[in-house]
Amino acid sequence: MFNAKVYITLKNGILDPQGKAVKGALQSLGYDEVNDVRIGKFIELQLNTGQREVAEERIKEMCEKLLANLVIEDYQYQLEEVAS
Amino acid sequence: MFNAKVYITLKNGILDPQGKAVKGALQSLGYDEVNDVRIGKFIELQLNTGQREVAEERIKEMCEKLLANLVIEDYQYQLEEVAS
Repeated sequence: MFNAKVYITLKNGILDPQGKAVKGALQSLGYDEVNDVRIGKFIELQLNTGQREVAEERIKEMCEKLLANLVIEDYQYQLEEVAS
Repeated sequence: MFNAKVYITLKNGILDPQGKAVKGALQSLGYDEVNDVRIGKFIELQLNTGQREVAEERIKEMCEKLLANLVIEDYQYQLEEVAS
């Protein structure tokens, strides 16, 4: 069994209004050192798969087909084997 | 200057309807090995701070005051010094 951690981030150059709002909120709370905020998604999945290669291939496919919108987003993932 | 990566996740036991929907979507695409999906937030911040201790203390405060809802969410962060 594998645990997958997937990080979905907006590509550089894509506007992030949610990040901008959070930056404004932090600054209005007095955190003036905050320069830039970008908000993405963090997805944790459990995969019932025995082999790392299979898990890796499948998680890539899932990212490209459903989890990330590759026009505006990038993805990264980490796979970790766990006892099932 | 520091880059902070903040991971906001739902606490164990808190229902995650968004994760459940994504799990259902993945399974209907044929990814039957997907067991569990939990969806959180991934926030990247740039902090204009010179000292690691200060940055660390401030980012903790930001998480507790604004970024995470500690009733239902946990947070983790990583700090990385970058050339300013």
